[in-house]
Amino acid sequence: MELKRKAPDWQVQKWFNTAVPLSLEKLRGRVVVLHAFQMLCPGCVQHGLPQAVRIHQHFAAEQVQVVGLHSVFEHHEVMTPAALSAFIHEYRWPFPIAVDQPDMASNIPLTMQTYGLKGTPSLVLIDSQGNIRYNIFGQASDMAVAAAIMSLVNETSSLHGPSNKSEDDQPGCSDSTCAIDPKTER
Amino acid sequence: MELKRKAPDWQVQKWFNTAVPLSLEKLRGRVVVLHAFQMLCPGCVQHGLPQAVRIHQHFAAEQVQVVGLHSVFEHHEVMTPAALSAFIHEYRWPFPIAVDQPDMASNIPLTMQTYGLKGTPSLVLIDSQGNIRYNIFGQASDMAVAAAIMSLVNETSSLHGPSNKSEDDQPGCSDSTCAIDPKTER
Amino acid sequence: MELKRKAPDWQVQKWFNTAVPLSLEKLRGRVVVLHAFQMLCPGCVQHGLPQAVRIHQHFAAEQVQVVGLHSVFEHHEVMTPAALSAFIHEYRWPFPIAVDQPDMASNIPLTMQTYGLKGTPSLVLIDSQGNIRYNIFGQASDMAVAAAIMSLVNETSSLHGPSNKSEDDQPGCSDSTCAIDPKTER
Amino acid sequence: MELKRKAPDWQVQKWFNTAVPLSLEKLRGRVVVLHAFQMLCPGCVQHGLPQAVRIHQHFAAEQVQVVGLHSVFEHHEVMTPAALSAFIHEYRWPFPIAVDQPDMASNIPLTMQTYGLKGTPSLVLIDSQGNIRYNIFGQASDMAVAAAIMSLVNETSSLHGPSNKSEDDQPGCSDSTCAIDPKTER
Repeated sequence: MELKRKAPDWQVQKWFNTAVPLSLEKLRGRVVVLHAFQMLCPGCVQHGLPQAVRIHQHFAAEQVQVVGLHSVFEHHEVMTPAALSAFIHEYRWPFPIAVDQPDMASNIPLTMQTYGLKGTPSLVLIDSQGNIRYNIFGQASDMAVAAAIMSLVNETSSLHGPSNKSEDDQPGCSDSTCAIDPKTER
Repeated sequence: MELKRKAPDWQVQKWFNTAVPLSLEKLRGRVVVLHAFQMLCPGCVQHGLPQAVRIHQHFAAEQVQVVGLHSVFEHHEVMTPAALSAFIHEYRWPFPIAVDQPDMASNIPLTMQTYGLKGTPSLVLIDSQGNIRYNIFGQASDMAVAAAIMSLVNETSSLHGPSNKSEDDQPGCSDSTCAIDPKTER
Repeated sequence: MELKRKAPDWQVQKWFNTAVPLSLEKLRGRVVVLHAFQMLCPGCVQHGLPQAVRIHQHFAAEQVQVVGLHSVFEHHEVMTPAALSAFIHEYRWPFPIAVDQPDMASNIPLTMQTYGLKGTPSLVLIDSQGNIRYNIFGQASDMAVAAAIMSLVNETSSLHGPSNKSEDDQPGCSDSTCAIDPKTER
Repeated sequence: MELKRKAPDWQVQKWFNTAVPLSLEKLRGRVVVLHAFQMLCPGCVQHGLPQAVRIHQHFAAEQVQVVGLHSVFEHHEVMTPAALSAFIHEYRWPFPIAVDQPDMASNIPLTMQTYGLKGTPSLVLIDSQGNIRYNIFGQASDMAVAAAIMSLVNETSSLHGPSNKSEDDQPGCSDSTCAIDPKTER
């Protein structure tokens, strides 16, 4: 569903994959894709995080910044920053990842609370002005996610074409294409 | 790659899945996704046509019209309109499909020629003003295709949110999500 | 379900991918995997035929012979031997394929009738003595199919190890493995 | 590759998913599928463990016992038994899982050493007499694994049919099958 409210600042215990801490203020001007996950959440490992990687790979960094948010609300004793570090190392997740600040008074960490996330995986899309525009709990298709991100990109920037990598110009059929053989044109 | 030239009219031998023939003129105002395929092209059956269905399902019909184009450039004797009809029936392709008009003087049918398609599958994106904007031969990711389509939609219309179907609000982890259990909030 | 009755001779209009016609008599001593399909059956193209290729690739030819059977019971006018020939060419199916002999008095071809097949895809497993042992309509898992084939192989032959291709002996984690680094053994 | 040597006893720190500790001696008479993994090994989570579940589901428990072995050789400080417990809980792995006994003098745990495993995932097949017959590092196809397991089952037991769940007897084509409509038999 579409929303529009100011995205709260992130409350972060520790950052990975970035030399300097990120903030919404520093990212103003770019669309921010915030992917909240837990390292032991099957839907995150199988669907959410790989989709975040595809977003990271497809969109230009000047337009879209993917940020992981490790929002632990269960099994806190084993989903520690040290465990997360090993998880990031083994899976080679390529984008910056923040550890959501634990709340001493609740199982739900602070950023997860202020964003009103229902669980993991959650995908929060923040426009270039810093407003939350989508907050999706569970799986969304690449088709839906890319269309929503592109809408936000288009609000502030000009067009940006698809990466078109798998072109295949050999005549004949491969597994993926059937190319015209100049000889068949007679 | 991005292009911008007037999309030529389609030259069509026969239509399926539509009561009346379609034309670019009638579709003016909508983004048109033209998917050129051959019914015996493995890459079309396995990747291109299922992706076209996902486009058809995700985007609103008032904004995006998917059109199949059966552009036969080999095995003409068996990829006939009658064979195509059986193929459409068995696979239940849900969008309008045009049979590209054969050229008596070439193996390449006429629309395929005027669009300069390199083979199948090809995905041609036409903006709401009737200009060709992308012409992609081979496989493109859903991420890339949805972003490109959304760019064209956004040129003429306001925002359109993602379909967000697979929400799962039960506490605990399912295969796809881990939902906060109100009890864990203490 | 397991069966045991003499497999009837095949009634074949035409063979593809074999220099000489095959018969159960000639194949005596080998397990025969008969895969009945139609070229316009989605479940055959997406699941059945690719599984038949995996069977063909895994088991040694001296022990297991995969045979395709094109059993057309609908859309006869377009699923002709000429159309099948183009289909085999484009998809590069690697095993012998027989065209089931049409019955002038029925839509069901003759071999399909005598084997009592319920539709396509069907997988019929025939032991090395020429008895039908399994007749599976619809999808079966690779796990189930390989176990059933191996049972029949083991009735007449000695053990045959798994093809073990994707070994990866580099230290560190790849997408598929984590190998011990000699240095970590301290 | 096929082997034949006595399988060493397992050295286990802790068991999960079983009321009583298992041992090769107790399992004599059954084929044992030992799946060695690490909870933070991507190839284990994505391929090895799901395949172990399919083995567990397909083969009868009286014939084949699947046993997980958590053989941690890196990131020991975070892949603890407590972390494994949360991992098993979230992913709902259904078979008994042993924690391989750490070696104070090496990063490689003891059972991993005595079995000569090269890393994770590894699949060790032990016959009903307690001999190691296959030791596969990395990914093997379901086709290969099921055939190898069935060979071992057949050495001591009679035939066991495939589970044939997805039968579909409705006339017409579904995604997975095309069933004969009694009317088409004329």
